[in-house]
Amino acid sequence: MQIRLFIDSPLSVGQTVALPENQVHYLKNVLRADVGAELYVFDGKNGEFAAVLSALGKKSGDIQICRVLRGQPAARDVRLYFSPLKRDCTELVAEKATELGAARLVPVITDYTAMKRVNVERLKATVVEACEQCRRLDVPRVDEPALLRDVLSGWGESDPVLFHLDETGRGKRAGEVFAGVERAAFLTGPEGGFSEAERALIAKTPNTAGLDLGERILRAETASIAALALFMCR
Amino acid sequence: MQIRLFIDSPLSVGQTVALPENQVHYLKNVLRADVGAELYVFDGKNGEFAAVLSALGKKSGDIQICRVLRGQPAARDVRLYFSPLKRDCTELVAEKATELGAARLVPVITDYTAMKRVNVERLKATVVEACEQCRRLDVPRVDEPALLRDVLSGWGESDPVLFHLDETGRGKRAGEVFAGVERAAFLTGPEGGFSEAERALIAKTPNTAGLDLGERILRAETASIAALALFMCR
Repeated sequence: MQIRLFIDSPLSVGQTVALPENQVHYLKNVLRADVGAELYVFDGKNGEFAAVLSALGKKSGDIQICRVLRGQPAARDVRLYFSPLKRDCTELVAEKATELGAARLVPVITDYTAMKRVNVERLKATVVEACEQCRRLDVPRVDEPALLRDVLSGWGESDPVLFHLDETGRGKRAGEVFAGVERAAFLTGPEGGFSEAERALIAKTPNTAGLDLGERILRAETASIAALALFMCR
Repeated sequence: MQIRLFIDSPLSVGQTVALPENQVHYLKNVLRADVGAELYVFDGKNGEFAAVLSALGKKSGDIQICRVLRGQPAARDVRLYFSPLKRDCTELVAEKATELGAARLVPVITDYTAMKRVNVERLKATVVEACEQCRRLDVPRVDEPALLRDVLSGWGESDPVLFHLDETGRGKRAGEVFAGVERAAFLTGPEGGFSEAERALIAKTPNTAGLDLGERILRAETASIAALALFMCR
């Protein structure tokens, strides 16, 4: 399998780039790569490049950028506003949302959110790993947690359509509400769902729509994944 | 949260049912339920019932079935044929496929399947737990592993349409191929994809269609979840 690495600085052909210690460790001790190995690298902004491992020491290593493989595609404005869940489920959501093409992940604290602490640095690492794995070239942005109330109070007609997962039966099916929509945001609550006050607030917020994912009660993480799959793979 | 239990014998109103030891343990030691507690129970065939915990000993317990809550819905013939993955990923697929409504899960061994041992009993338990959790009343059937070649050689026009996940670019998008389809089967390969020989075999099998889930390379478990979400939540 081709080694793919995210490099957190702008890349261009001809450059020599020093690798950070964790990537040196990964190449040397996990993948057992040697000098001369070909890698694919991307920086999230300038596309994908073929590179060669040109030096590998105990704690340092260099790569040389050889040629352009793919140009950077335009990112779509598709966002996920999700209540933090248990650690494993939050990481599952971040990984799958990245694979499915979400451009921005925003943890939102709602009335019934039980897990109020979010390890944003860990989520950023999860997202980078998922990009390396799924050949995606743009790395989704991961925001600091926000209060749902603040997100809603700032939402307007110039923002994407905010689809909230609606289990009350008043939401509409994907086929009905996605037609013609290019920029979308999805909002999923915690295991306990949204509070009455939150539902009322969402109903008053412009540019929102309820999404109905069918008669089964999906777990919060499944609802996030299903909604993104429906939108991105239609 | 309402306690929901799957009872593995036919239920009807008025019955007293002895609980198996693991459910007694779960009620007594995990949920700390007492005699008189109300439960929702389902048997996978006759709908959902309200019941009362009428006796609770150290290792035994009885429930009394009080009234019908929901009739049994008709199950849809939607199946997932999936290559076993690492244990966690296989269980993730089984859990999410249950939430999303798959009626039958079939592990298939393909040329590149690395994990050839499947703990079918563990998968059945995962599926039951997911049903208890997501309020689903029919429990998906979990088959013993089958060889992909045998599945394909027996596939015909009277079977559901077999959609295989096609990353070669020759597949079609969900919106194009799902229209009017009521009975469907999905086929997802292992991390390494299908072999050339398998692709040729699939192409010769009647009643199959390639499904394209977009430009990103989804992990095998994500592809299974996304395909079912697309079909069941459209």
